[in-house]
Amino acid sequence: MDMLWNGWGDPEQAAPLPGTVTGLLHELLGVTPRSTAPAALEDLAVPAPRLGDGALRALREAVGDDGAHVRVDAETRVRHTRGKSTPDLLRLRDGDVRDVPEAVALPAGHEEVLAVLRACAAHGLAAVPFGGGTSVVGGLAPERRRPFVALDLRRMDRLLALDPVSRTATLQAGLRAPHAEALLAAQGFTLGHFPQSYEWATLGGFAATRSSGQASAGYGRFDEMVLGLTLATPEGTLETGRAPRSAAGPDLRQLVLGSEGAFGVVTSVTVRVRPVPQVRHYEGWRFASFEEGTAALRRLAQDGPRPTVLRLSDETETLIGLAQPDDIGSLDARSSAGCTAILGFEGTPEDTAHRRAGAADMLRGSGGTPLGGEPGRRWAEGRYSAPYLRDSLLEAGAFAETLETAAFWSRLPELYGSVRAALTSTLTDAGTPALVMCHISHVYENGASLYFTVVSAQGADPVAHWTRAKHAANDAVLAAGGTISHHHGVGTDHRDWYLREAGELGIAALQAVKHRLDPAGLLNPGVLLPAD
Amino acid sequence: MDMLWNGWGDPEQAAPLPGTVTGLLHELLGVTPRSTAPAALEDLAVPAPRLGDGALRALREAVGDDGAHVRVDAETRVRHTRGKSTPDLLRLRDGDVRDVPEAVALPAGHEEVLAVLRACAAHGLAAVPFGGGTSVVGGLAPERRRPFVALDLRRMDRLLALDPVSRTATLQAGLRAPHAEALLAAQGFTLGHFPQSYEWATLGGFAATRSSGQASAGYGRFDEMVLGLTLATPEGTLETGRAPRSAAGPDLRQLVLGSEGAFGVVTSVTVRVRPVPQVRHYEGWRFASFEEGTAALRRLAQDGPRPTVLRLSDETETLIGLAQPDDIGSLDARSSAGCTAILGFEGTPEDTAHRRAGAADMLRGSGGTPLGGEPGRRWAEGRYSAPYLRDSLLEAGAFAETLETAAFWSRLPELYGSVRAALTSTLTDAGTPALVMCHISHVYENGASLYFTVVSAQGADPVAHWTRAKHAANDAVLAAGGTISHHHGVGTDHRDWYLREAGELGIAALQAVKHRLDPAGLLNPGVLLPAD
Repeated sequence: MDMLWNGWGDPEQAAPLPGTVTGLLHELLGVTPRSTAPAALEDLAVPAPRLGDGALRALREAVGDDGAHVRVDAETRVRHTRGKSTPDLLRLRDGDVRDVPEAVALPAGHEEVLAVLRACAAHGLAAVPFGGGTSVVGGLAPERRRPFVALDLRRMDRLLALDPVSRTATLQAGLRAPHAEALLAAQGFTLGHFPQSYEWATLGGFAATRSSGQASAGYGRFDEMVLGLTLATPEGTLETGRAPRSAAGPDLRQLVLGSEGAFGVVTSVTVRVRPVPQVRHYEGWRFASFEEGTAALRRLAQDGPRPTVLRLSDETETLIGLAQPDDIGSLDARSSAGCTAILGFEGTPEDTAHRRAGAADMLRGSGGTPLGGEPGRRWAEGRYSAPYLRDSLLEAGAFAETLETAAFWSRLPELYGSVRAALTSTLTDAGTPALVMCHISHVYENGASLYFTVVSAQGADPVAHWTRAKHAANDAVLAAGGTISHHHGVGTDHRDWYLREAGELGIAALQAVKHRLDPAGLLNPGVLLPAD
Repeated sequence: MDMLWNGWGDPEQAAPLPGTVTGLLHELLGVTPRSTAPAALEDLAVPAPRLGDGALRALREAVGDDGAHVRVDAETRVRHTRGKSTPDLLRLRDGDVRDVPEAVALPAGHEEVLAVLRACAAHGLAAVPFGGGTSVVGGLAPERRRPFVALDLRRMDRLLALDPVSRTATLQAGLRAPHAEALLAAQGFTLGHFPQSYEWATLGGFAATRSSGQASAGYGRFDEMVLGLTLATPEGTLETGRAPRSAAGPDLRQLVLGSEGAFGVVTSVTVRVRPVPQVRHYEGWRFASFEEGTAALRRLAQDGPRPTVLRLSDETETLIGLAQPDDIGSLDARSSAGCTAILGFEGTPEDTAHRRAGAADMLRGSGGTPLGGEPGRRWAEGRYSAPYLRDSLLEAGAFAETLETAAFWSRLPELYGSVRAALTSTLTDAGTPALVMCHISHVYENGASLYFTVVSAQGADPVAHWTRAKHAANDAVLAAGGTISHHHGVGTDHRDWYLREAGELGIAALQAVKHRLDPAGLLNPGVLLPAD
């Protein structure tokens, strides 16, 4: 099954908004229905592929093509055009297919990926690794000076090895997360990586972008799970990871993780796995304010016991009920002030009971009020539904988008305030006042991430409005000491701010690596690092 | 106070071996007293510094010298010659000062480090960052094609910032670990990093070499504690670390960590700190075999509860009593077969009690027998004494050295067996049969480290004997899937094996970084990476 070409996920899960919500959007934000219908797939003016016979032949030879593994039909190419940010979807709905790849190659394994890269090098083509296609930072839209091939890894979907003693698994990069979980579950294990893109995203994409899942408090980020990597580059293969930890030089794994296809194509990952938990329990807590809740989360992250899932919505998000997307529009929430936290505990019965009890003591001592299992159950049910809700909002004429950052705990209040102010003022000035909601999505001993959701009317030019607001937010992030991305990555959207964050010499070091591994600059040009 | 110039640490802590031990060494290994006394410091033929007036003047200007911050006297230079591996000590005892620096520069801060690097670049000098001088892998002995300056960071010993909310501290690189702990303890915090080199090693050295401490099971490795770094390079300053974790590109911190002075000089680190523990409890456990004990440690590392300290001696090490170095020669140990594990618990009374009880259940279920607090107390007392013991052994005519590696759990038995066999057979063939002991020194969910100690007679040419044995062990490490170093680093001693481990393209990527940050190749030439 494919995702919606101009929306998120399974078309069958998309549902129109209830009347109460459309009424509320109109009343609060001036949202009015779109006057024009989105472009239809069959009506798009997709240009013919800029691909000579020689190039096409070389690509076909690279993937042992029987006709099916290099695709140049318009629909396949459109389905590999950009990612799933709101501007990406709006552009497609407006019929803008300028970022379409010339062809989509489907290699069956590491050697075929190397062969595709050789074919691209020989024919002046760029190559853009494509996993689940869920980038929200322009990671699939390279600069367009030369034609590019989308390198779709979906055929590379095998569990290559499972070591139950060491609790490691080696998985091919094109495996979608639910498929990987199913393969591991058959042997009693889980990866424990559940980002909101879970249903569609791939293992290779998680590695390339330093993905972080909703259960990161317990299972860690994806970059903490990775023990080994295989990278196909135009200059050959880089393999790394002989031990959990090593003092043999800089950690090459951490050089590949987050490289977003600019250094090479991740073709397989060796990750730590854990036994499938016997217990999964989620519950809600209420705090009087975001400040009070933040302090409580910090205490839990620093002194424990550590829940597996730990998140906290600010007052606005709690009020709107976006913490439970299925519940949006229910005005019950308005009657109860404060902020809702969700805690999850996964593991053995003894361990989860111990941690639940300890966390409850800690939270009570920090001003928290238990809300019981119901909010937790609803959060878990709706944990992947926000992007579907976005489809419905876009359909109804609203604009909805997210952005995220992270900082040390002491910087968090300023970061929260200044990003919120930047978004609010920019969008209000543009005539599309916005609801700006936020939650703490991931916690560490020394800091946390902030995840903002913005909803406004689309207005005349929603992409332009948003671009201005997003740039103001990016400036605010850096000014307040935050990182330009905690888990979405850099792509093209964050690149200019990333250059400032990493600094001239940091970028120079990475460019040096890029030039060595990809001397022709064919890999994802302009993504992460500026194209030469 | 300075370390012994040709031995370890505080001269006052060195003590001759008891007669029982010298008797045992003779009986078991054929150790006989050395026929010649070690060279005296004042008798060394230290060549005059190869340093023109211009170079000396430039160095003095770089450090705002009042005469004290650039030293060219023979004693200071000898005290900055090589590190503290056994071959390093034996070479000095034999009067071999070929690796002596031309001068020792003592910069007072980051800007002065940059200035020293500029002075070195202008005058064709190499620069070797020098922290505690405790390298055991040749990390302070660059290739000798050009003269080099030891860049001793001891004047950079300040706590620059402490953020009690985020629990982070920024510390200058030249701080020795005990001094850093004292500065943090004054504000209620600890770093929790206690490697065997603790008394002498510096924060910058920990970062540059990916040090791992004896309490790594609880506090993590040093590379896991580092949240930010400042690096002085010939091309300028690289600063990194705005958040605990980020998806903004590859992790530059992990590119600097382990770079061993080849990319730049670490001038400060921002590290996570934790409250000083209220409880510190150490205890011993006995297992029937190393295999059984290893399985028990694996269960604890994977399923918890996790002790703060967790180590296991093999049968030989248990027998010899090296787990408690003060106890060597006591033959009591011989009467009790098996392997001793040391567990430590640090934290709050409630947390340590809970973890102790859980760990005890787990270990009993894995065949362990509790030995009570006495072995733990003795381990803690002697935790930094092994290198002092080595001084006494060398004095008595014995050879003693260590090496270490790590691998995934499933590879550990083969790694253990083959390294042991390589050491034993090489040294036996050389006519100096050895005692080879081992312990698991650090544990992870997915694997562990093995730390070997070798004792033999010195024989006619102990450095040559050891070099052959060590090379055989290195080959065995790689063949069995281990990493060439878990926490000692690469230096020059491991470099050729490191090249094989990291692979051609991995090394090429690091060389590209090196060339960009240090185009003249003046930083620690030949350490970590081959000199051009």
